[in-house]
Amino acid sequence: MTAPLHEAHPAGPGRALPDTQQGMRRRNLARVMHTVSAEGPLSRAAVASRIGLTRAAVSTLVDELIRSGLLEELGPERPGRVGRPGSALAVSGRGPAGLGAEVGVDHLAVCAVDLRGEVRARAVRHGTNRGRSPGPVVEDLTGLVRQVVAEAEQEGLAPAGLAVAVPGLVAGDARTVVRAPNLGWQDVDLGTLLPVEYPLLVDNEANFGGLAELWLGDGTPRDFLHVSAEIGIGGAVVVDGRLLRGTRGFAGELGHVPVWPDGPECGCGGRGCLEQYAGEEAVLRAAGLEPDGDRVGRLAGRAADGDADVRRALRDAGEALGIALTGAVNLLDPEGVVLGGALAGLAPWLLPSLRAELARRTAGPACPVSVSRLGPEGPLLGAAHSVVRAVLDDPAAVAARG
Amino acid sequence: MTAPLHEAHPAGPGRALPDTQQGMRRRNLARVMHTVSAEGPLSRAAVASRIGLTRAAVSTLVDELIRSGLLEELGPERPGRVGRPGSALAVSGRGPAGLGAEVGVDHLAVCAVDLRGEVRARAVRHGTNRGRSPGPVVEDLTGLVRQVVAEAEQEGLAPAGLAVAVPGLVAGDARTVVRAPNLGWQDVDLGTLLPVEYPLLVDNEANFGGLAELWLGDGTPRDFLHVSAEIGIGGAVVVDGRLLRGTRGFAGELGHVPVWPDGPECGCGGRGCLEQYAGEEAVLRAAGLEPDGDRVGRLAGRAADGDADVRRALRDAGEALGIALTGAVNLLDPEGVVLGGALAGLAPWLLPSLRAELARRTAGPACPVSVSRLGPEGPLLGAAHSVVRAVLDDPAAVAARG
Repeated sequence: MTAPLHEAHPAGPGRALPDTQQGMRRRNLARVMHTVSAEGPLSRAAVASRIGLTRAAVSTLVDELIRSGLLEELGPERPGRVGRPGSALAVSGRGPAGLGAEVGVDHLAVCAVDLRGEVRARAVRHGTNRGRSPGPVVEDLTGLVRQVVAEAEQEGLAPAGLAVAVPGLVAGDARTVVRAPNLGWQDVDLGTLLPVEYPLLVDNEANFGGLAELWLGDGTPRDFLHVSAEIGIGGAVVVDGRLLRGTRGFAGELGHVPVWPDGPECGCGGRGCLEQYAGEEAVLRAAGLEPDGDRVGRLAGRAADGDADVRRALRDAGEALGIALTGAVNLLDPEGVVLGGALAGLAPWLLPSLRAELARRTAGPACPVSVSRLGPEGPLLGAAHSVVRAVLDDPAAVAARG
Repeated sequence: MTAPLHEAHPAGPGRALPDTQQGMRRRNLARVMHTVSAEGPLSRAAVASRIGLTRAAVSTLVDELIRSGLLEELGPERPGRVGRPGSALAVSGRGPAGLGAEVGVDHLAVCAVDLRGEVRARAVRHGTNRGRSPGPVVEDLTGLVRQVVAEAEQEGLAPAGLAVAVPGLVAGDARTVVRAPNLGWQDVDLGTLLPVEYPLLVDNEANFGGLAELWLGDGTPRDFLHVSAEIGIGGAVVVDGRLLRGTRGFAGELGHVPVWPDGPECGCGGRGCLEQYAGEEAVLRAAGLEPDGDRVGRLAGRAADGDADVRRALRDAGEALGIALTGAVNLLDPEGVVLGGALAGLAPWLLPSLRAELARRTAGPACPVSVSRLGPEGPLLGAAHSVVRAVLDDPAAVAARG
């Protein structure tokens, strides 16, 4: 009687329907896809042994996935092995693809990722979106989407969905941007503005960044706190391999954790929030620089050159991050903290004071802090991979649509 | 394409085994138990319609649960209804019971709760445990357990397990108290010390308090933050009806969230932690009172009498709670905050400043804060109900042992 005591009732989210043969088949199709995706190429026999079903049961599932274009046979395995040669299975490099898009403050980007996880097409448009009204921005984005889709289709790929990362809070409908202060957007329904015929998912860039880290990071644990920055500070909480979304989808707002409760006023209504000390604009201000142009590049360049003001500003930002993270670590007890986005590029100057603050406020070993290798690519990749994961998680849905 | 995108792979925790007929049967037994528990008495037909299985399938499951002593038939339903009269099913008031125990700083308590959720036996021993070594404390606790078990057995109940709430951090083995500073315990293995022949589960009192609120609270949401106090401040994070435990089982340590980062040193190694402002001892000190005796009773009594020092101390504690909770709410986006334990009794004097702080630091509507009706009973009831829930969640395990 250990962990199961605290498990939710089995009829929890995703398990609301009674157990039926049909539901069992769908879940087993997903198991086959995930197994081949993670460990393929694999023979039918190898898949069967890994997921604990009979070879006959697996063959039926595999045949269905091949018919739907989600798996492909690579031909007979090389001779020399014992027994009848099996045909190796691999995830298809054609068929469904995930489209990811990012509406950044300074750029727009779109990419297509196949079921194998490879980026197969990509388009970017540089230029500020700050203060532009949603219509023209979405029009530019739609142009990039068309361009990427055309490229992907030439390679035999078909979009299974479009996921859009935005720098703001997104409503529970996963379409409406409730508030994106650095764009100046409020209550913008991207579902209406974006003329796409496939499923749409809109989410906060920090959430997609956290998911990218979970799925693509190098040795990322299944319980971690992801901290990123563009203008503001974004956070994503991943618990047991799942993104913690919160009641309204607003969880992970690390940027508005109070650090010095009497500190400067913040746009969120609070005072002394982390963003007032460690957001890009706050750091530029503290270093006496203008908050425009290539913000991170300039900070990193000057810090590398030994600029004392910039180094001090980054050290103070690291200290504020350390204080806010102490609270977050006490609440969540994650296996680690991962710095992503712009923070990754500034890590050499943030980390010493950040780690020192965490260590001196923690009895026992402090929570390990690492730096993401995905950097600013995280949200875009996380968006595209969200679509890919949805296909792997329920291949039967694609087969039914196909 | 909405929520499922972020669902974990179906082979997540509790679903590690492939879908089999056997697993399906166990989950359906649990569904029948939970349905009768939540809505009973119900006829077989009513259970079938609620869980979406055929009447024949439900009858087989019900017969098994009756044979195991988990359900009972109340006899034919009253006449006058349409169709053949069905026999109403109810959860058995005999058979398996959950034993809950609490090691408090000032008391020990044990109770037995039947599968219907009723407390059927209870024993308490008052007197401080601070600084007592674990052996004698556990010996006293064992005496109370024996007394409660004897009473329960006389009523036809049989313990299905013992869950123990402790005021400290518990290791992942759910047996070892890693650190209970207010008892003076460190690395105490209750699994070895407690001579019981049924499954044992040890957990932090704040976790059990949060679970009690989830299961027994009045209109408690499925996403909330539970805050309680004894000497320290305890917290429990409940996400989508599940307790967030953290990597090492240390999540929910709201008491060590930094409030004023340059504030007084805390036993945790930090400075200015919430506990330094809102823990019972901190409030007593701030009010100029000795930190002994009936701490909460004295504070509440004096506050009710209009003692200005006590009221000021409680107002300041409420403010510190509001600052720490602002950070927690930004990270977790819960549906609400529930004050439990000793804080419930002090709520009239804590809430105004707490709510004001949350409101002034939040753009838009602040997170609602409510007061638990369970008060100091929460951890003990949560412990006993944990055992009961384990039976409801996997009735087949009891049947197999039976």
